[in-house]
Amino acid sequence: MPNDEQSIRDLIATWHAATAQEDLPTVLTLMAEDVVFLVPGRPPMRGRDAFAASFQGVQQFRIESKSEIQEIKVTGDWAYCWTHLTVNLTPIESAANKTPADSSSEQSGKPKFPPRRSGYTLSIFRKNDDGKWVLFRDANLLAAES
Amino acid sequence: MPNDEQSIRDLIATWHAATAQEDLPTVLTLMAEDVVFLVPGRPPMRGRDAFAASFQGVQQFRIESKSEIQEIKVTGDWAYCWTHLTVNLTPIESAANKTPADSSSEQSGKPKFPPRRSGYTLSIFRKNDDGKWVLFRDANLLAAES
Repeated sequence: MPNDEQSIRDLIATWHAATAQEDLPTVLTLMAEDVVFLVPGRPPMRGRDAFAASFQGVQQFRIESKSEIQEIKVTGDWAYCWTHLTVNLTPIESAANKTPADSSSEQSGKPKFPPRRSGYTLSIFRKNDDGKWVLFRDANLLAAES
Repeated sequence: MPNDEQSIRDLIATWHAATAQEDLPTVLTLMAEDVVFLVPGRPPMRGRDAFAASFQGVQQFRIESKSEIQEIKVTGDWAYCWTHLTVNLTPIESAANKTPADSSSEQSGKPKFPPRRSGYTLSIFRKNDDGKWVLFRDANLLAAES
């Protein structure tokens, strides 16, 4: 029997690693087909297909993210977890075209796009009949860092 | 045996009614002592005492709030629920001092303070040993309506 809490920690680690590699097919295996994502100021994003569509929109960025897990509670085939999440998006095009001059302008204090964002998440995970855990409900309170 | 889902619906209804009546002692009975509240852009608010302190800060307002429950899932002594929440804060002082002239200026299209806010919540509830449900973890994605 795998340890459920460790399985959820592994899921989260895989999520960040696959996202950094823009490996959408792997990320999609980590969520239920009827997953729901809640974020401030927008309607809920419902379903794996909607997530896949939104993922296309950030493919122009290199994504670096990490979660500091604050708590995981498993009860039977359900679990919740809250984390502190940090996300950095770096435009891929500008990184590829970077020259010493660009690098110098970055060091001049010019604001970088986009800003680093951080905040808390509260997530519900569900264990499928095959014993695999998936993300089921996710509230993401990420805000731009000032 | 009371129905657990109905108990949680009743808890949420009591929360809104007690909040509208500024009945902090009742609201405090609806949450675990070690409750955690997550909101965008701020550190987590931990514990019933911290909630009580923050509640004092809004006592200058009349609070009208309502939750439209989107989903409740109970599993044993744990449950999660997500809702669409709407909150209106009206300054009590201005309501008490209202004159026909004030009323007229409100109708002139002048922006009211503070704005109506709405958004989603994802919450974890726990059933205590005495069978009573309490709020345990809460992510509140409320944003000002534009």
